[in-house]
Amino acid sequence: MEGQHMREIFEAELKQVGDDLVEMSSLVAQAIDKAGRALLGSDLALAQEVIVADQAIDEIERELDSRCVLLLAQQAPVATDLRVVVSALRMSATLERMGDLARHIAQVARGRYPVVAVPSLVDEFTRMHEAATGVARRVESLLQTRDLESAAQIEQNDDVLDELHTGNFAAMLGGEWSGSTQETVDVTLLSRYYERFGDHGVSIAERVTFLVTGEFSDAAMETPTSGTTTH
Amino acid sequence: MEGQHMREIFEAELKQVGDDLVEMSSLVAQAIDKAGRALLGSDLALAQEVIVADQAIDEIERELDSRCVLLLAQQAPVATDLRVVVSALRMSATLERMGDLARHIAQVARGRYPVVAVPSLVDEFTRMHEAATGVARRVESLLQTRDLESAAQIEQNDDVLDELHTGNFAAMLGGEWSGSTQETVDVTLLSRYYERFGDHGVSIAERVTFLVTGEFSDAAMETPTSGTTTH
Repeated sequence: MEGQHMREIFEAELKQVGDDLVEMSSLVAQAIDKAGRALLGSDLALAQEVIVADQAIDEIERELDSRCVLLLAQQAPVATDLRVVVSALRMSATLERMGDLARHIAQVARGRYPVVAVPSLVDEFTRMHEAATGVARRVESLLQTRDLESAAQIEQNDDVLDELHTGNFAAMLGGEWSGSTQETVDVTLLSRYYERFGDHGVSIAERVTFLVTGEFSDAAMETPTSGTTTH
Repeated sequence: MEGQHMREIFEAELKQVGDDLVEMSSLVAQAIDKAGRALLGSDLALAQEVIVADQAIDEIERELDSRCVLLLAQQAPVATDLRVVVSALRMSATLERMGDLARHIAQVARGRYPVVAVPSLVDEFTRMHEAATGVARRVESLLQTRDLESAAQIEQNDDVLDELHTGNFAAMLGGEWSGSTQETVDVTLLSRYYERFGDHGVSIAERVTFLVTGEFSDAAMETPTSGTTTH
């Protein structure tokens, strides 16, 4: 195959990979928004919607990953191109996991219907919901535009989630907690789901930042792997 | 570079990737064993050991991943070789996560020292500990030998973890629970950590099974990605 032609195919495939990531992030943003509203409003239909829609996220992940592996096999990309493909593989796994967490939140909402799962901490989970939807919307915008302003906002939202997470545990363990055992279990799980959701958003922010700047941000990454080849 | 020579380099690099995975799995097996003993015996020194040792697991992951990315860049593997490298990238992320979960268990043990975190469910967590160390030891043996008997045993251990997980929640919510709020929170988190540990073990079992047989097992995989290129 002629070089220029191969390059065009590669660019087209790479664009599709990028579009798939944006599509996944858009579905994740819808999922976390609906899951939070299902939780706070004990909305069974909405919870059910999130649970069913998670399959579409998983499906895109499978397509995206097989596209990446084919790209590696047929185009043998190097340098930046290789970094983009490997990062896409990692980010699709992260987005899939964010979709799972939204589904877990929806499952708790569904399990407690028709009552609200977290009656003692409605304000706190409202704020978690806002911060998590903020993370998800900015992940979508970051993947679309590569504007690193979104990366900074994701980290801020994640800080808010961490604070609320710590606060929820303090509320339960502070001695004045009158929630039922069911609520204690639910708050523990839900709070952790939201906190993890934020962590995953930060991991995507750091990968995109690395792709754009060639450098990891100061924030420690759990697995700053794609960076090691260029340092 | 001459073809035969490149092939030799590739084989040597690939062997190193395999050795790194075995080394990671061995450290994970030690971590989950020590974390469980720290939890059940409220052993502060042992908990501390697990927390510190997790950094070594993270370090091997970084080395392994940069080795895989270099392999992709310099050797442009295809077919089975490519599948092996991409699977190694995924399995190292999974093993790193299993290390994190062992660390989380150790952190709960450390936080409750000198008392045992789960006084009401010591027998149940003893069984979770046994099943989880079973998962970890068999993951190590599977990565070492590719003997699929280990894969089957991992799935059995995971079933045990799922049952115990469900049982712990039933115990807390069954109406006769007299544990403190702290214990409710701890049981919720610990039970989930063990359950996730088992899931990750199964995901490795399925990847190795696929590499050996070319087919995914019947058990549904969360992300059966590496399979999609050959079906």
